[in-house]
Amino acid sequence: MSGNTFGKNFTVTTAGESHGVGLMAIVDGVPPNIAISEADLQIDLDRRKPGTSKFATQRREDDIVEIISGVFEGKTTGTPIGLLIRNTNQKSKDYSDIKDTFRPNHADYTYTMKYGFRDYRGGGRSSARETAMRVASGAIAKKFLFERLGVQIRGYVTQIGNIKAKEVPEHEIDWEFVNSNPFFCADKDILPAFERLITECREQGTSVGAKLTVLATGVPVGLGEPIFDRLDADIAHAMMSINAVKGVEIGDGMAVTEQFGHLSQDELSSNGFLANHSGGILGGISSGQTIKVSMALKPTSSITTAGQSIDIYGNTVQMLTKGRHDPCVGVRATPIAEAMMAMVLADHYLRHRGQNADVVPPIAPIE
Amino acid sequence: MSGNTFGKNFTVTTAGESHGVGLMAIVDGVPPNIAISEADLQIDLDRRKPGTSKFATQRREDDIVEIISGVFEGKTTGTPIGLLIRNTNQKSKDYSDIKDTFRPNHADYTYTMKYGFRDYRGGGRSSARETAMRVASGAIAKKFLFERLGVQIRGYVTQIGNIKAKEVPEHEIDWEFVNSNPFFCADKDILPAFERLITECREQGTSVGAKLTVLATGVPVGLGEPIFDRLDADIAHAMMSINAVKGVEIGDGMAVTEQFGHLSQDELSSNGFLANHSGGILGGISSGQTIKVSMALKPTSSITTAGQSIDIYGNTVQMLTKGRHDPCVGVRATPIAEAMMAMVLADHYLRHRGQNADVVPPIAPIE
Amino acid sequence: MSGNTFGKNFTVTTAGESHGVGLMAIVDGVPPNIAISEADLQIDLDRRKPGTSKFATQRREDDIVEIISGVFEGKTTGTPIGLLIRNTNQKSKDYSDIKDTFRPNHADYTYTMKYGFRDYRGGGRSSARETAMRVASGAIAKKFLFERLGVQIRGYVTQIGNIKAKEVPEHEIDWEFVNSNPFFCADKDILPAFERLITECREQGTSVGAKLTVLATGVPVGLGEPIFDRLDADIAHAMMSINAVKGVEIGDGMAVTEQFGHLSQDELSSNGFLANHSGGILGGISSGQTIKVSMALKPTSSITTAGQSIDIYGNTVQMLTKGRHDPCVGVRATPIAEAMMAMVLADHYLRHRGQNADVVPPIAPIE
Amino acid sequence: MSGNTFGKNFTVTTAGESHGVGLMAIVDGVPPNIAISEADLQIDLDRRKPGTSKFATQRREDDIVEIISGVFEGKTTGTPIGLLIRNTNQKSKDYSDIKDTFRPNHADYTYTMKYGFRDYRGGGRSSARETAMRVASGAIAKKFLFERLGVQIRGYVTQIGNIKAKEVPEHEIDWEFVNSNPFFCADKDILPAFERLITECREQGTSVGAKLTVLATGVPVGLGEPIFDRLDADIAHAMMSINAVKGVEIGDGMAVTEQFGHLSQDELSSNGFLANHSGGILGGISSGQTIKVSMALKPTSSITTAGQSIDIYGNTVQMLTKGRHDPCVGVRATPIAEAMMAMVLADHYLRHRGQNADVVPPIAPIE
Repeated sequence: MSGNTFGKNFTVTTAGESHGVGLMAIVDGVPPNIAISEADLQIDLDRRKPGTSKFATQRREDDIVEIISGVFEGKTTGTPIGLLIRNTNQKSKDYSDIKDTFRPNHADYTYTMKYGFRDYRGGGRSSARETAMRVASGAIAKKFLFERLGVQIRGYVTQIGNIKAKEVPEHEIDWEFVNSNPFFCADKDILPAFERLITECREQGTSVGAKLTVLATGVPVGLGEPIFDRLDADIAHAMMSINAVKGVEIGDGMAVTEQFGHLSQDELSSNGFLANHSGGILGGISSGQTIKVSMALKPTSSITTAGQSIDIYGNTVQMLTKGRHDPCVGVRATPIAEAMMAMVLADHYLRHRGQNADVVPPIAPIE
Repeated sequence: MSGNTFGKNFTVTTAGESHGVGLMAIVDGVPPNIAISEADLQIDLDRRKPGTSKFATQRREDDIVEIISGVFEGKTTGTPIGLLIRNTNQKSKDYSDIKDTFRPNHADYTYTMKYGFRDYRGGGRSSARETAMRVASGAIAKKFLFERLGVQIRGYVTQIGNIKAKEVPEHEIDWEFVNSNPFFCADKDILPAFERLITECREQGTSVGAKLTVLATGVPVGLGEPIFDRLDADIAHAMMSINAVKGVEIGDGMAVTEQFGHLSQDELSSNGFLANHSGGILGGISSGQTIKVSMALKPTSSITTAGQSIDIYGNTVQMLTKGRHDPCVGVRATPIAEAMMAMVLADHYLRHRGQNADVVPPIAPIE
Repeated sequence: MSGNTFGKNFTVTTAGESHGVGLMAIVDGVPPNIAISEADLQIDLDRRKPGTSKFATQRREDDIVEIISGVFEGKTTGTPIGLLIRNTNQKSKDYSDIKDTFRPNHADYTYTMKYGFRDYRGGGRSSARETAMRVASGAIAKKFLFERLGVQIRGYVTQIGNIKAKEVPEHEIDWEFVNSNPFFCADKDILPAFERLITECREQGTSVGAKLTVLATGVPVGLGEPIFDRLDADIAHAMMSINAVKGVEIGDGMAVTEQFGHLSQDELSSNGFLANHSGGILGGISSGQTIKVSMALKPTSSITTAGQSIDIYGNTVQMLTKGRHDPCVGVRATPIAEAMMAMVLADHYLRHRGQNADVVPPIAPIE
Repeated sequence: MSGNTFGKNFTVTTAGESHGVGLMAIVDGVPPNIAISEADLQIDLDRRKPGTSKFATQRREDDIVEIISGVFEGKTTGTPIGLLIRNTNQKSKDYSDIKDTFRPNHADYTYTMKYGFRDYRGGGRSSARETAMRVASGAIAKKFLFERLGVQIRGYVTQIGNIKAKEVPEHEIDWEFVNSNPFFCADKDILPAFERLITECREQGTSVGAKLTVLATGVPVGLGEPIFDRLDADIAHAMMSINAVKGVEIGDGMAVTEQFGHLSQDELSSNGFLANHSGGILGGISSGQTIKVSMALKPTSSITTAGQSIDIYGNTVQMLTKGRHDPCVGVRATPIAEAMMAMVLADHYLRHRGQNADVVPPIAPIE
């Protein structure tokens, strides 16, 4: 498969660049008879949309999605669902001076070396713009998972720069609060500190990194196809495929390095697990516990301070990107990470059910 | 694809359990005319083999690999390469008392719920035994990458428990030392501390986590298939598919959270990049710089201290695994991680070359 | 992969129904720097379009294709190419009386049993309308193959009903004639007989089958991935996936049944092959000779004579489809079969080049 | 995927050449808890084995299969099943004089041009020997389909050379007779004519083609993934991938060319279909009717009459293959075609069930 298709049974194929005519996606393998409307998709697109908050990018994008196929009388038909978003708000002139130069820390150099040239208007296909289609497609997966299985997928930001939000226990998270503040943050007290940091970055023309977590609850036991398509492996693939992600953790993540085996087991009782160090995945298969995934996103590459680079003739240049940019992509990545989680879980549910629908386990699931 | 095939063009399909007849692999899509012998594969299998060092597991496994097909007069033919390792050293009686119980932190519960029952002799397919075939198959990928491109893939352990090795700059690493000490460690001074910690863990019947890094040098620019099969995404998938891995980092990894954009760019000059925060991958495509991947492995689940669990009838039981176990899987995971890196790079090289062999970039690669 | 993606490296993913908003395709893995425009695609779409000739369907469809992404300054960028055709000419009222019935020989019954219900406005996804996107996508593959390799793919109709065109030797075919008569026929003398038969069928409200052949010349030796993805196997898959195709032949096809080995060999000389019984494919790999594929298409299922069927309540009904229909889909399938051939060859070229670009064979190709 | 993996959810990956150490297969995605033993596989291997009858090849092969993994206490575990057959009966010296020549109508030329060289001992990977693994793997699929769904897959030869067997109606076929005569023939009267023709061919050192049919009964409605992975398309792919197959037909096959629509419909009644022109597949999806597939196989390429060819230096040579060969591969292809049908149906059953297990159609299936 070429690299623009995600999944094996529930597949998402996307196309589209930042400054082209628009973005497209084809979502295939969606079970029939799921209620889906453009409004369902628009909710998550709006959560991702820059310009909704003064702390995100100043660029305004209108992500109005149109369903082209695969839905009849409000229900999925089982045939492929086509989605279209037309680009409406790109100012080409913002980018014309970078035609022959490689912006540092962008994909300009690597795309040009791979393909011989690139669409230099913005990032082209490497721009974060393509994530709009991930979110729209992921919304279909989310709807299916929730409607059929009661799975909920929700993310929140845990850290911006060196400012760490307080750890809120899963059952205490106020999701309405998370989704009504511009940082998708669960810690009510940390917001002023986040705001100050972001504002400083914008004023100084720089950017900062962030860390976020996605939780999936209600996931049935048994999803995952060892040994290569383990559920955690596919989740890691999904998250690392998001622009700016440089680290992915499942459960306790990197902290397992310092743990001792006898203190970090997820012991079982007939009433459920007694701990969840594993983040809901054991042996590459979902255990029924909450799936917890965290990821670190690097600072935006498009900043307005100068950086050194070269042009396509080999000359050294100082790069200064103009235009409106996002000081922290972490503020927008949350719905994207949720969408990727949904795609992975939907795909794995179909794969597992296909092979194992006849299975009758010896006991009832303990979660 | 089912979950036991890795890759799209250069594919590795494996089978085999800890206590079955043996392990198999079929490596498909290997370019022809690469010199390959069983000796080439045995080198890395021996690096992985427990029993080579008193600090790893006490269990002895004989991983003698046989090439069944795909090699003629010492060269790959382009047809699929079949590999076979017969199991010789499993004592079934070590496991008979766990037939009806779910060992905590193992995949016993999830496999049983997924498939209805499991091969209870050891971990069956979930056992780390299957990694022998990853290593044998990865050795073929390594040979191809080195012979045709000069790519070298080498790993080393950076931390065991809370004991951190000193950071050795890439060009100063003594690889002969790394591959001659039982910890694949680059820091000569830390070995006694590692030894003490491992010995304590074994004596106390527990285990500890570890962290390791894999470097790939000489990787040509242009590998990776955005947006979903970005090179970093496929590497994350590969590493997270290894038993016990719970976190994967590319380049600066989780540390990017606290970085500022203007201080962490990989600026370009005509003589090369001026930094490598990105770990050799920009926009999901290799930049020509050293690819750096780190991962955290959790403590072994098979420990000899007691843990609570349930049996298949729902009764609470105390689990005490007998037998010989590994206090730190990190000691053995290094060649496995190298093998996975090799598989990903070989696959991506074929994919990139297939689409872009005609491309003439505007400048020569700067690395 | 779900069923709406074709290919492994050069992939085509389509969506869209006869009466939905429109049709979409995403073509991924296209090598960069190929000159492509909407006009290139429109040529083949117009060849497929009903209404161009009075012998095809009376239904008019406007297949105006729009390129949404993947092309910059007239050249492919290597990023996925999105295509869109909006439906403009469906009269829903033609179909409302078949809402609850299964038209005989259509996919109504099978789609309804598979998905639980169907989009009853026309054939929905099962309608031949989706072939417009195959043609548009295939035009991109054709462009690439011709521009880079000099491959030409051309089809012609050899039989309609029991009227067989004269066999014209390959080098004598007048392709301008083929593409200017409404039957894509190479035999100038047979046209009146074709016209009479088609007119009779329309007047009688029935339909008739047809047979066509596609030739691919200039195909380099070496394409095909035995043993399962042999070139002939993938071509058979591609052609049998076209609505109404019920038989596929390579080279001498079904006639090989009665051949003797010593009389039907493709003997070799240093100037080339002495025969081409194999149709250009030996051992599943292209030999450099002309690839010859033939296929039989069944009579259209949408006819205006009555047929018996049942409705979704189990009642027997007499079906009489109204509206404007095509008495012979063979008249339109020729550009579709060319498009499928192009997709297969483009995909296999990338796969072969990816693995074998370094190969230096012992002799020059003999064709 | 590389070309040696068949299927998407129920996958078969094979390796092995005619004169290498052995043959291997890994069958992945097999549902758990199916009773499987080496004896189950050996039945079909013996049906395929040359030397069982004096009318097939004189070469004796011992196809003794060993199950290496994926089966525990006689039941499939859901983990990948590894199969191994060691080659025991190849006489290398039969082939040494063809080291530098390309046998006409074999894959010698195409393999050499694709890979640069070939394993010249027999056909290597292009030899029909690899079909042993298809048969062994297909037996697993057959077992699953029969045990869970009651599907039966049975083939029979309908023509050898110009000698056509009488058409026996499906319900009248004596399958015991079919499987006890050396031609897998259903027509008791034709056997002497078949015997004479085969004997003549052997005496004259030539070979002859054949035609066979495979029937699958009890297939549930709904299998097939339009528009590209239609069930008929995947069946065509499967059959055309068998050495020597040059034509594939579904249902009425090539005969549809001459049919009229109003006379060849598969009309529906509440008691079932009234005809089966479509061969059990409508719109690319199984209808519940018997699936009927026919295929034509060309005469064996390995014959003992002379043919012209060239060597790797470009010199013209006369080729005379010595050794023991098969005058009609059709005599052996029947179990291979059954195996391929089984693989396709198993794969599609898992894919369909994965997506559509929740579907409740408006009526009960009518077959």
